[in-house]
Amino acid sequence: MKAITSRDNPLYKRLKALAGSTHQQRRSGHALLEGFHLASTYLDVAGQPELCVVTDGALNHDEAQAIVSRIDEHRLVTLPDALFGQLSNVVHGVGMVLLVEKLDAPLPGRVEQNCLVLDGVQDAGNVGSILRSAAAGGIEHVFCARGTAYAWSSKVLRSGMGAHFLLQIHEDVEADALIERLAVPVVITDSHGAEAIYDCDLNRPLAWVFGNEGAGVSQAWREAVSLRVTIPQPGGMESLNVAAAAAVCVFEQCRQQRGRKN
Amino acid sequence: MKAITSRDNPLYKRLKALAGSTHQQRRSGHALLEGFHLASTYLDVAGQPELCVVTDGALNHDEAQAIVSRIDEHRLVTLPDALFGQLSNVVHGVGMVLLVEKLDAPLPGRVEQNCLVLDGVQDAGNVGSILRSAAAGGIEHVFCARGTAYAWSSKVLRSGMGAHFLLQIHEDVEADALIERLAVPVVITDSHGAEAIYDCDLNRPLAWVFGNEGAGVSQAWREAVSLRVTIPQPGGMESLNVAAAAAVCVFEQCRQQRGRKN
Repeated sequence: MKAITSRDNPLYKRLKALAGSTHQQRRSGHALLEGFHLASTYLDVAGQPELCVVTDGALNHDEAQAIVSRIDEHRLVTLPDALFGQLSNVVHGVGMVLLVEKLDAPLPGRVEQNCLVLDGVQDAGNVGSILRSAAAGGIEHVFCARGTAYAWSSKVLRSGMGAHFLLQIHEDVEADALIERLAVPVVITDSHGAEAIYDCDLNRPLAWVFGNEGAGVSQAWREAVSLRVTIPQPGGMESLNVAAAAAVCVFEQCRQQRGRKN
Repeated sequence: MKAITSRDNPLYKRLKALAGSTHQQRRSGHALLEGFHLASTYLDVAGQPELCVVTDGALNHDEAQAIVSRIDEHRLVTLPDALFGQLSNVVHGVGMVLLVEKLDAPLPGRVEQNCLVLDGVQDAGNVGSILRSAAAGGIEHVFCARGTAYAWSSKVLRSGMGAHFLLQIHEDVEADALIERLAVPVVITDSHGAEAIYDCDLNRPLAWVFGNEGAGVSQAWREAVSLRVTIPQPGGMESLNVAAAAAVCVFEQCRQQRGRKN
């Protein structure tokens, strides 16, 4: 186990730069996993991290020890609390961060399964919530178009609560490339003039497209749509938060599928 | 119209202190409304703000002019861009903030309507999303217990997208005081052993309680529960983001009510 004690250490500098910039994380395809749950899930699913960074204090915890014991000696680095604090976005964190390459799922040749497309969903909390709903709803593939928040950023990881390891997440997906591979109908929500979601046949694989919080679904996806559904809203508001809308859609589909199976 | 040009101006100092502290906003019962949509909705619903603060540049916009023309002269203050920037949380804002007292809804003597209880929902984005779902679903009353994010903070207002003006929002609600006024059954979501939400009779007024992101629903509300519902989750995850769960519940209730009315 290597101990870093100076803030001028090149490895520390690299970690600090990554921790401070989602842009750098995205560019290099890395993620920083905080907390025992994410760390142990990563080890289960993907094997060894690039590095495991812990504070001296964290090593006194059984949960940290259990994780450290699974990691190759040469991948372990200890840091004093003061240096560690600058790597962490969590106020009362556990003093452990895994540096990993993000799990990159190549675009399938043909998409025949139910799936989600995030077409410029920019808020990290929304992306995390949608990934969590997708994983809970039994969806396997989530395709993220440009303009969507980096799915492996700390905030998305935190709000995803482990969903990342139950899903195949495809990033920087070009609309054209995905549309030509889709063997399932494209569906969007539309608040005006579309059929109520409850009356639509959702008991089949679909590609659900959710757009940007402000601008909605982009032109390329609008042109690919087979089905427009509306979530009837009896109150005065005419729109939902995109993650709330995605949850309603995914679980209405689950309800219909459950109904048909009975 | 009064022009403030110095950062030592007492009114400016007060505004800056409020803008920088959700805690101060909560303690004094104030809110800062940014953007034309929130500003005009407030004027429609509640009348004059305490102050309307604009940049000189904003006054050149027709939308800003339309709002300014509705506000009493002595409530208008102009600021240079440099001073205004420190009041705003919005990066590309419109250069207009309304300082208002929050709309405070007193606890009703008896609650017979469908309603939501936020029992320590701490993330502002979640609270805003839930308020928006409630307003879209036709719910009138939202009760916020201690530990819930301040409903009139800038972030909740932003994610609420105007829902605040369609709802009666009650804050700092004590569980005991509300429970003894409730004439409707209390319902919570429970991932283990409860009946599937689709099989429960939701075609009646209910008090939906949603708890803290980590700790869930508190003991006082657990003891008041009449109905536990589960959202079946066929995927590997066993839980949803609280705002996603609230959306699924509110719209499953809307679906059942719609079904019965047909």
